[in-house]
Amino acid sequence: MLHPNLAVNENGHLTIGGLDAVDLAREFGTPAYFIDEDMVRENCRTYRRAMAKYFGGNSRPLYASKALSCTAIYHIVREEGLGIDCVSGGELYTAKTAGFPAAWIYFHGNNKTDRDLADALDMGVGTIVVDNEDELRTISAMASARGCTQKILLRISPGIDPHTHRAISTGSVDSKFGRAIETGQAKAIVAEAMSLPGIDLAGLHCHIGSQIFEIDPFVDAARIMTAFIAELKRDLAFDCRELNLGGGLGVRYTEFDPVIDYADAIERIAAVVHQLCAEHNIPIPTILLEPGRSLVAAAGTTLYTVGSVKEIPGFKRYISVDGGMPDNPRYALYASRYTALIANRAAEEKTVTATIAGRCCESGDLIGEDMPIQPARRGDILAVLSTGAYNYSMASNYNRIPRPPVVLIAGGKATVAVRRETYADLVALDVL
Amino acid sequence: MLHPNLAVNENGHLTIGGLDAVDLAREFGTPAYFIDEDMVRENCRTYRRAMAKYFGGNSRPLYASKALSCTAIYHIVREEGLGIDCVSGGELYTAKTAGFPAAWIYFHGNNKTDRDLADALDMGVGTIVVDNEDELRTISAMASARGCTQKILLRISPGIDPHTHRAISTGSVDSKFGRAIETGQAKAIVAEAMSLPGIDLAGLHCHIGSQIFEIDPFVDAARIMTAFIAELKRDLAFDCRELNLGGGLGVRYTEFDPVIDYADAIERIAAVVHQLCAEHNIPIPTILLEPGRSLVAAAGTTLYTVGSVKEIPGFKRYISVDGGMPDNPRYALYASRYTALIANRAAEEKTVTATIAGRCCESGDLIGEDMPIQPARRGDILAVLSTGAYNYSMASNYNRIPRPPVVLIAGGKATVAVRRETYADLVALDVL
Repeated sequence: MLHPNLAVNENGHLTIGGLDAVDLAREFGTPAYFIDEDMVRENCRTYRRAMAKYFGGNSRPLYASKALSCTAIYHIVREEGLGIDCVSGGELYTAKTAGFPAAWIYFHGNNKTDRDLADALDMGVGTIVVDNEDELRTISAMASARGCTQKILLRISPGIDPHTHRAISTGSVDSKFGRAIETGQAKAIVAEAMSLPGIDLAGLHCHIGSQIFEIDPFVDAARIMTAFIAELKRDLAFDCRELNLGGGLGVRYTEFDPVIDYADAIERIAAVVHQLCAEHNIPIPTILLEPGRSLVAAAGTTLYTVGSVKEIPGFKRYISVDGGMPDNPRYALYASRYTALIANRAAEEKTVTATIAGRCCESGDLIGEDMPIQPARRGDILAVLSTGAYNYSMASNYNRIPRPPVVLIAGGKATVAVRRETYADLVALDVL
Repeated sequence: MLHPNLAVNENGHLTIGGLDAVDLAREFGTPAYFIDEDMVRENCRTYRRAMAKYFGGNSRPLYASKALSCTAIYHIVREEGLGIDCVSGGELYTAKTAGFPAAWIYFHGNNKTDRDLADALDMGVGTIVVDNEDELRTISAMASARGCTQKILLRISPGIDPHTHRAISTGSVDSKFGRAIETGQAKAIVAEAMSLPGIDLAGLHCHIGSQIFEIDPFVDAARIMTAFIAELKRDLAFDCRELNLGGGLGVRYTEFDPVIDYADAIERIAAVVHQLCAEHNIPIPTILLEPGRSLVAAAGTTLYTVGSVKEIPGFKRYISVDGGMPDNPRYALYASRYTALIANRAAEEKTVTATIAGRCCESGDLIGEDMPIQPARRGDILAVLSTGAYNYSMASNYNRIPRPPVVLIAGGKATVAVRRETYADLVALDVL
């Protein structure tokens, strides 16, 4: 099995965290997202322990909550002692609803509105990761008007081009995010931030992209950022207390993806940071990382019911399920690969190749093409693995389809965390 | 201006249906969708009149409601005398909420669940457009158990490859939709439908794709379908009473797209259908068309507020707005082109080229790249045109961003049809 929490039981059914997937589908309906809470907690602990060990006690993983944002997940990561990365007023609100300490919140985004910033200041958000001059000046004015000082980091583009999908590569010079070192604009915004009232510039942030399997791009980012910190120390007398290296470590979606040892990756990045800080003769800043996908993706499984199976001689076999791009738009957006199986015949060989189609009236509504799978028929339960990240959080009501529930599995028990949308919910905002 | 309902007033502001866009942004906030109801109604009338004139009194346009699905739009198309194409239980429910006569509903989809089909039979849905054998047999069993007969059409794949984006091309042999003539499977399902109890096979349906500017693919589809109807008459003694040719006529997103005269297109398709039926010596079936995009896309305008403007020397200019792929995922999905302008300086020249970025933490979150536009700054109102179709209906809460309101503009008055989501709405389903 792709992940250690998945197995096949004596009935030949897939089990998730020890629970029979066919029973889960019967109890909670389909489509539905199942998140193995135990696995999420274990991933949180791996990051916490490794960061404490290799970066020191003040270092902390911040959960990039856009990966899977609902109240329950904020509870879980808070209990595990992580900080949190929020990217919108909605994420701030949800974190607050879950009782997340505002001081542990890092507020991100390339375009924070005046309302977002006012909300963040009202909440006492610990750190705002400032993207650009417009935002910097707005915060300075707001904080000054309130007679307070806001701790910030500045988002810096290190000019790294990791090997990942273009839509999720974020650290190159030509990016909507942050200011680039290469153009001189990063240094200019540091100087401006140091000069503005109401601003406490604590350090820098960078994020090179997502779903990256190589450690080298992270090492390169650390190299570029420490050199930049040394330059800022020399030219602007800036003391960088925090360096947030973002997230982006990859996750196993298919058996062709490697298994990443996150603790080992953190150890290797830490060794480089220590060495570089020594070479540049600068103190080692508090290091932060922002895992999102690598905490939750592998913990998620979506269960669907098969509606039809269609053989087109000379072309393809289509298996249609009762969800699709509304609950998982990642194939439509990025041609992302997944692993699928028939949960009620999980012990059987995957003897066919099929395109798994969603139920929307759109040809692009596919879960994947040419996927190895067991033969299927109407009424079968089809499982798609590694759907914990960027599925629920990207879900839409396209084709007026209600969003599935999010069910947590912990200690052999399943509990609804987000209930299924009803048809009545779909028209609840229709005032005409 | 791209569409006749848009203009620039004496303040140099964009007007939509005669209303000042800057005033609209102030009154309803941003981001927000504005739909010119008068224009939607006029488009409905163009289709109705042309179909009655060229196809006869029983012909009828059916609104493909997935393009923009909310209660108000069903009211509007009902008042204009259109039938409706629904693709899910959610769309059926919304149509019912709007008081749409069930007899005028055509229920579509490649994967209708048992619950969907039971709901459709309970509602008395006029016509089910059956996609495959699994569905056909389920309907037959359900209708027989209820002692009723369900009118159906069969979805047929004519094997047409129109020039459009692959994700929205639907009529080729290798498609998740329907059964293809070429493989012999279309004829087989017609024979099966004729033989099954509880089924009244009234005719055939095909749909070749979306956003198509040439008439030839529609003419080809009509040619293939009439030949197939003649073959069914000869070999199976099947009398085809209805032929639903689907939708797919293109819409003007930029000034490089042609203006389509829909009445003229209908006249040309009708001429071919009449000629072909005469050649094949078959009666002319009642013709149905399913416009979606061409009724609502051009009537929609999205207004955003600019949050930051970023120049990257040697690369791009980014204008970030307070929405993005959550309210309009079409660039992320299909690299769709749009037209944008600064609504509060609409009279000025578009002297710059910019990439319009959304506010999500994702590089792919763009409204468009390299778009001509007026110079912009924080606080400006940015308008994106032709957003009436596949924007609200595809919207998500990605990055936990509330969905914008849908505001109707009619007779110089603006009224909220779908209210803006609140932060509280975002956590309303979070039960843990």
